[in-house]
Amino acid sequence: MKSALTELEEKGKAAKAASRKLAFLPTEIKNRALLSVAGALSARQNEILAANSQDYKESEASGMSAAMLDRLMLNPSRLEAMAQDVRTVAALPDPVGEVIEERTLPNGLQLSKKRVPLGVIGAIYESRPNVTVDISVLCLKSGNAVILRGGKEALRSNLALAKVVQEAAYKAGVPQGAVQIIESTDRALVDYMLKMKGTIDLIIPRGGAGLIKSVAENAAMPVVTGGIGVCHTYADKSADLNKAVAIAYNAKVQRPTVCNALDTLLVHAEIAPRYLPLIAQEWAKAGVEMHCDKRALSILKPIPSLKLVPAKADDWGKEFLALIAAIKIVDSPDEALEHIERYGSGHSEAIVAEDKSAAARFLNEVDAACVYANASTRFTDGGQLGLGAEIGISTQKFHARGPMALRELTSYKWIIIGDGHVRP
Amino acid sequence: MKSALTELEEKGKAAKAASRKLAFLPTEIKNRALLSVAGALSARQNEILAANSQDYKESEASGMSAAMLDRLMLNPSRLEAMAQDVRTVAALPDPVGEVIEERTLPNGLQLSKKRVPLGVIGAIYESRPNVTVDISVLCLKSGNAVILRGGKEALRSNLALAKVVQEAAYKAGVPQGAVQIIESTDRALVDYMLKMKGTIDLIIPRGGAGLIKSVAENAAMPVVTGGIGVCHTYADKSADLNKAVAIAYNAKVQRPTVCNALDTLLVHAEIAPRYLPLIAQEWAKAGVEMHCDKRALSILKPIPSLKLVPAKADDWGKEFLALIAAIKIVDSPDEALEHIERYGSGHSEAIVAEDKSAAARFLNEVDAACVYANASTRFTDGGQLGLGAEIGISTQKFHARGPMALRELTSYKWIIIGDGHVRP
Repeated sequence: MKSALTELEEKGKAAKAASRKLAFLPTEIKNRALLSVAGALSARQNEILAANSQDYKESEASGMSAAMLDRLMLNPSRLEAMAQDVRTVAALPDPVGEVIEERTLPNGLQLSKKRVPLGVIGAIYESRPNVTVDISVLCLKSGNAVILRGGKEALRSNLALAKVVQEAAYKAGVPQGAVQIIESTDRALVDYMLKMKGTIDLIIPRGGAGLIKSVAENAAMPVVTGGIGVCHTYADKSADLNKAVAIAYNAKVQRPTVCNALDTLLVHAEIAPRYLPLIAQEWAKAGVEMHCDKRALSILKPIPSLKLVPAKADDWGKEFLALIAAIKIVDSPDEALEHIERYGSGHSEAIVAEDKSAAARFLNEVDAACVYANASTRFTDGGQLGLGAEIGISTQKFHARGPMALRELTSYKWIIIGDGHVRP
Repeated sequence: MKSALTELEEKGKAAKAASRKLAFLPTEIKNRALLSVAGALSARQNEILAANSQDYKESEASGMSAAMLDRLMLNPSRLEAMAQDVRTVAALPDPVGEVIEERTLPNGLQLSKKRVPLGVIGAIYESRPNVTVDISVLCLKSGNAVILRGGKEALRSNLALAKVVQEAAYKAGVPQGAVQIIESTDRALVDYMLKMKGTIDLIIPRGGAGLIKSVAENAAMPVVTGGIGVCHTYADKSADLNKAVAIAYNAKVQRPTVCNALDTLLVHAEIAPRYLPLIAQEWAKAGVEMHCDKRALSILKPIPSLKLVPAKADDWGKEFLALIAAIKIVDSPDEALEHIERYGSGHSEAIVAEDKSAAARFLNEVDAACVYANASTRFTDGGQLGLGAEIGISTQKFHARGPMALRELTSYKWIIIGDGHVRP
């Protein structure tokens, strides 16, 4: 244990030292490094896939679920998709050095605010090995060093991927030490990592609610929490029913296992008798199980072949991550807003309404990272919202909210140029 | 104790409830409330001064230092200055609702990012009662509720000021509960406050290093740390000596007790024999004690009437908050940069140099909230840098760096408007 801790400390020091050089590494070198990483992901696919296959076999033997195995598995086309994502990040503008504000004060002082990297990012994540590459390249492009700590089940894959990233990046001119990965799977190392306040400037946990909660509670440095989404879609009495069906269907069915998927459908009582049967029949075709409040149940019961379950108290505010939706009928927009305030997680919330003032009130009053009118909550994603990439989705208000990419991995500094100026 | 805790919880709930209404209170009402607070500070000065006089007498009797007593003391002109500061904040633009970004995505989704308040701010501060008013009005203007916890020695003054703020603001239409002050001086309440994560969205500690460190270590919610400044001024070999004298003099002498005052003067060896005697004689007239490294000492020793002390190891990196400066001679810009990296606190750092490339390198490479070329570090201040006010100076990189005012008390939300858009 002692030696793993010492190793972690050394990695921390190396990352910090590298971060100082990375902070003013020219954009061209960073981009060249990223393109070289992308190339290496293809060129060295044999060693990556060999490592991944060992992880896969071991996890399979230990009884990992098919869904989890699928998340773990790499193949040439997935590697190519990863390489393509790296090329996308290389093509994004460099946030570092961007001038956010610039002006000359009345006394002649020239003032500017310039973007700078945060320093060293610690990433603690589970399962999917592509996160190793995603986070590394987003950190490198934004001038940050990174210390990676992936899940045990993907250890060999993560180590192989990190090695490819490191070698390609360093060869292209990225300072040695900029990408660090923790090799020991000892849990105590995570606790120790969370205390390395002078070394790690920001921790990003990616994984289930348990991981995120534990990191948020124990980290001595700032943490970006997110990725937990209890998402509501409210069909107002002014809703266009076709749009409301399409949106709720997409939000629930298109990818049910992710944080921006619909969890609870709120329906205004006035349209419920017409709307609910329409969406329920569509959902039923996709296999969605519906946890209904009393009134919704009485509307839907007569319809054959629906998977209906009476809603229990803990269905409200639950992130299902599966083909399950809770349904509640409300008598007013106020009731919808109150329900969302009480049970939402501040991630993504939507209204379907033709009435512009109802939509405006919802967008104004709902306190969430992303608020939608007449669109699916599934759009909460860095790529979909035009950031070109994503390191995570923040559900906190501090520093960054919603999808985070390169800019959100930066801070700024004030630069003040005078000519012998002193304060009167 | 139990009842003080219950009271704190109730205040927390009331602040949270108020914050939801405050978030979309019209600018005119907020401004009217602030002007009404400013008026009340004059109109009700008798009750404020009576409370302050009790605090003063008690502190004086208990042996408080003259400097601290001066910080505690209120009088009509100080109250008028406070009222003027409130009017200044009223005149500043409302950050809430500001559209930070706006565009239409290729798929037709209309995307905007709009500023919103953070929610409930917790303020823990020492001594100066004007902080009660400063923080309250900055929070109100930025749409945040606030829970105040001031120092024991200023309790009566703080309670009187908070009462004036509350009554004036509520009468003008600010939701009841928006400004809360903790009346008990029990220390355990601070610990409890730091755990109220669901209620308090951000903690701002203002006071000495001990307070800030303890809050940063114990708070469950985000904290903005700052206010500690170990500030260097580096006189490069290309420095204009007159500017270097004026800048170092101003940075040390104009107000030595604050965080942006000079602590260590770094001087390039090439100009030291000419420059050091000039600044030392000016400093000596102001009573500055100089803690010199060996080489500086040998240059300055022959000059009469200087207060010279051989520097000890712990003089480097010390925030003196007094008429004391450490002096070190360096042989190169690299040595200056290394010294600042090792001993700086990330607050304010300055170079005096006519050589533009030396200045540019310093501004680029020094990692601090504010970096200066040819100007005094004393300009690190929200008012001086054009923010119109200041709630503190952040020395962290996360969320906000350097002087913080209204904008820095906000977050943002993503607003996405579609017309039945679903994710493909």
